[in-house]
Amino acid sequence: MMRRDRLFLATTLTAIFSADLYFILLPKLRGMGQGSRQFCSCGPNNLTLPRQEGIATPQLFNWTSGSSLDGTTTDPTDGGSKLGRLFAHPLYNIQTPELEPEERLLQAEQLMEYYRKKVSRWERHMKLYSEAAAVSNITVTEHEVTFDPDASWLKFHLGISRYALYSRDDPAIPQLLQDMESMKLVSADYTQDEKALKGACDCTQVVKPSGHHLKLALKMRNFAKAMFKPMRQQRDEETPEDIFYFVDFQRHNAEIAAFHLDRILDFRRVPPVAGRLVNITGEVLQVTHNEDLRAVFFTSPANNTCFFAKCLYVCKTEYAVCGSPDLLEGSLSAYLPGLSIAPRISIPNPWTRSYTFTGREEWEVNPFYCDTIKQLYPYNSGNRLLNIIDMSIFDFLTGNMDRHHYEIFTKFGDEGFLLHLDNARGFGKHSQDEMSILAPLSQCCMIKRSTLLRLQLLAQPEYRLSDVMRESLEGDPLRPILVEPHLLALDRRLQKILRVIQRCVRRLGEDEVITEDFVKSTARPQTATETR
Amino acid sequence: MMRRDRLFLATTLTAIFSADLYFILLPKLRGMGQGSRQFCSCGPNNLTLPRQEGIATPQLFNWTSGSSLDGTTTDPTDGGSKLGRLFAHPLYNIQTPELEPEERLLQAEQLMEYYRKKVSRWERHMKLYSEAAAVSNITVTEHEVTFDPDASWLKFHLGISRYALYSRDDPAIPQLLQDMESMKLVSADYTQDEKALKGACDCTQVVKPSGHHLKLALKMRNFAKAMFKPMRQQRDEETPEDIFYFVDFQRHNAEIAAFHLDRILDFRRVPPVAGRLVNITGEVLQVTHNEDLRAVFFTSPANNTCFFAKCLYVCKTEYAVCGSPDLLEGSLSAYLPGLSIAPRISIPNPWTRSYTFTGREEWEVNPFYCDTIKQLYPYNSGNRLLNIIDMSIFDFLTGNMDRHHYEIFTKFGDEGFLLHLDNARGFGKHSQDEMSILAPLSQCCMIKRSTLLRLQLLAQPEYRLSDVMRESLEGDPLRPILVEPHLLALDRRLQKILRVIQRCVRRLGEDEVITEDFVKSTARPQTATETR
Repeated sequence: MMRRDRLFLATTLTAIFSADLYFILLPKLRGMGQGSRQFCSCGPNNLTLPRQEGIATPQLFNWTSGSSLDGTTTDPTDGGSKLGRLFAHPLYNIQTPELEPEERLLQAEQLMEYYRKKVSRWERHMKLYSEAAAVSNITVTEHEVTFDPDASWLKFHLGISRYALYSRDDPAIPQLLQDMESMKLVSADYTQDEKALKGACDCTQVVKPSGHHLKLALKMRNFAKAMFKPMRQQRDEETPEDIFYFVDFQRHNAEIAAFHLDRILDFRRVPPVAGRLVNITGEVLQVTHNEDLRAVFFTSPANNTCFFAKCLYVCKTEYAVCGSPDLLEGSLSAYLPGLSIAPRISIPNPWTRSYTFTGREEWEVNPFYCDTIKQLYPYNSGNRLLNIIDMSIFDFLTGNMDRHHYEIFTKFGDEGFLLHLDNARGFGKHSQDEMSILAPLSQCCMIKRSTLLRLQLLAQPEYRLSDVMRESLEGDPLRPILVEPHLLALDRRLQKILRVIQRCVRRLGEDEVITEDFVKSTARPQTATETR
Repeated sequence: MMRRDRLFLATTLTAIFSADLYFILLPKLRGMGQGSRQFCSCGPNNLTLPRQEGIATPQLFNWTSGSSLDGTTTDPTDGGSKLGRLFAHPLYNIQTPELEPEERLLQAEQLMEYYRKKVSRWERHMKLYSEAAAVSNITVTEHEVTFDPDASWLKFHLGISRYALYSRDDPAIPQLLQDMESMKLVSADYTQDEKALKGACDCTQVVKPSGHHLKLALKMRNFAKAMFKPMRQQRDEETPEDIFYFVDFQRHNAEIAAFHLDRILDFRRVPPVAGRLVNITGEVLQVTHNEDLRAVFFTSPANNTCFFAKCLYVCKTEYAVCGSPDLLEGSLSAYLPGLSIAPRISIPNPWTRSYTFTGREEWEVNPFYCDTIKQLYPYNSGNRLLNIIDMSIFDFLTGNMDRHHYEIFTKFGDEGFLLHLDNARGFGKHSQDEMSILAPLSQCCMIKRSTLLRLQLLAQPEYRLSDVMRESLEGDPLRPILVEPHLLALDRRLQKILRVIQRCVRRLGEDEVITEDFVKSTARPQTATETR
């Protein structure tokens, strides 16, 4: 283990040195030719960024250089693919060591066996269903399923490691996106969450509003499974200001954009998400074997096919979503491996919100809340708190206030990365930056060096976050995924994150604030003690 | 009784003669001077009105003359108040005979006694409540109530007769509107409907969606009661095409506009409605004595005061309405006398809709449905069917598809007029004319002569419906009540009504179609046999 750690450390140091070379030395050399212009903190933007005051160390980029939001700063490398350049950057090419078998989430044989069983169970089930359907005169479109040992979703599942959901250059990911965008759907059903509710509306919980209940589980010809969230809101609509975050619509485009953002931040903690124009009659209604699901489909007065939330049956048709006449946009998020082969635990976010009209959580009133958290297991050692801070940065960028829980794979123990699932409540308001989402960062004043380096890179005009996001999202069939104001909000929010860190550094010093990640906890991976 | 009927008939014939003189002879004389232009059926409008083919009889106006929708026809009497001229027209000045005591809904002494009892009960109740509130530390603003024997609402109630809810020149009506617009509110509560539900959501019924549950009963200083419906939708928003009529929002401005339209049609079957900017904190929350109602108030993330539907408590805050920060527009509809002193019965509309996604009622599939209805009590004699047709014309003009029941005062028996209550689902779509609402007219092919004469009058440019409506609605404090497209839709729909009648006349002859109303059924008023 020590040998691999040392190798890993060496790789990391090499990467950081490359970054220094690229960002500190090269710009300085270039700066000699161009004069000091590049170090001015961005003239015509209204964020009044404080000038750097010597806090940037050699290892870190200039905090705010070239961070103009209006694009007036000369972009020395304009033209060509910014996204390509980003992913070619040394920071995005730190090699992780060869994975040991126990560092992978799943073993190939185990998964294949699981897959084979699923297919044969499906075939038995279909045979029985067809007979029953013939008797009761139900017409269901039957599609052949195929057992494909090379299926992209299998490769995605096999690629999940203790470091991330996928590796940067895994060709299975673009393939999986493509499969979700176009592969034939063989079945549609409620999700397990939904089935657990059994159609009951849990009115004691504010947390589960109607929007929750319109997601569906779709199965593809090769047994890939994806969660479908239909479009509820136009791209240019902002969430009304009187709406509480916990009853906000879930947005299919937020789910898509969050996947791209997570990949650009190099977290790789969001499962792949693709947009798709789904024929809700031919691809959902006609392939479902669930009579409850059939029962919520209806034809609207305008002759469009619609379906509505199960738990609100009969009362709440105004919550329906409708095709035009059958086609409906939605997001498809790849399923993670089933809980039976890859158990996960769901842990309350220490910075959760109150989910009531008036209640306040301790973190909202106690400025020393983080000191308490730092004492508590599992936040008192290892990377867990830093991972929470990463997540808060991610959520602040998207504007998602609804992070009440997070999940981790039990196999990787307390050092496992946090899954950033369920991002559909992001991108609701481009005109507002909800600073309270950043509370973990601003209260704990710590951040992983690797995260900070990437944030600084994305604040540079050559890699401007809005530009690489725009380019990345262009690859989705439902493009444009985000309207311009949402893209520009990303740049503005990134500046605000950097300023929060800058303030921390000024107050506590860089050594306190910027944490060398990659240094692992000395304990071996262990099974987390929390129970799901 | 016969004497009065004869007097009434004479008055009516005089009025009709005046109308003939004004509309048939005068235009002909004028026409001689102007040439035949006036008889051309409206050049630049896209309704392709059929040219009159001699069906207009001396007693009726020209069907379509001067009915240009774009206002290009010269308006010989432009300038001044069209509404004033309309109400000065002989058709609107047919004198009803002096009312016999039994033709009034209420006797003054009876109502005064009732009022006195209410006031003293209120005072007792308030005394007890104040003591209880003091103990449990609830602060309720207490306003003095006054017993006012000259209150406008008392005069409105006393003015209800077997002919209409109010007489044309009753000064109590403008006074009541003004009182509802500005008089101090002393209490707010759920309506009786609401209380009957006891907070339960009746999910077996599609008919009662959420919108229903946001109406409140407000009491004014002089004990006037009004039903408050808050603004749910912007004036220029149209109901989305996929929304079923029975889950459509209730619109406060539709409630206001319906009162004005009903008065302009001279039906006077809608209780007075006024708009008001209500302070939902000071005028609702702080004066309510109902703890359930208090509990649905909250402060939104944008710091506005909001309240939401009781039956959806906890789950459905997205249904809330919010003030800005406290002020919220709403409609106030005057209450009718209580059921204990003026009982009403609610009768299913024979042309009701199915209120399901796929169900169809008989009238939708059977073109001879009216023949069946004509055989059935109470539609087989008297004016009941003609009253239903009046109501369908009213509803077609507003676009209200939600007329599942109608009410009548039991005191006036089967000949009583129909109350046009609950009009908030009108004015949802200006761009669509829902012809099915006119089914009673188009299937039965009959109409009261008095109604037809007024419709024809309102199709004349001098009295154009959209113009008199615009002028009438200008009197409401929440003006503009309707956006222009809704006003123009009224003219277009009026033309469609006239064409339906024209087709009936062409097919069946005028004698069959146009019914002399004012000829009463020979039976004395009797108590209706249906039970509420």
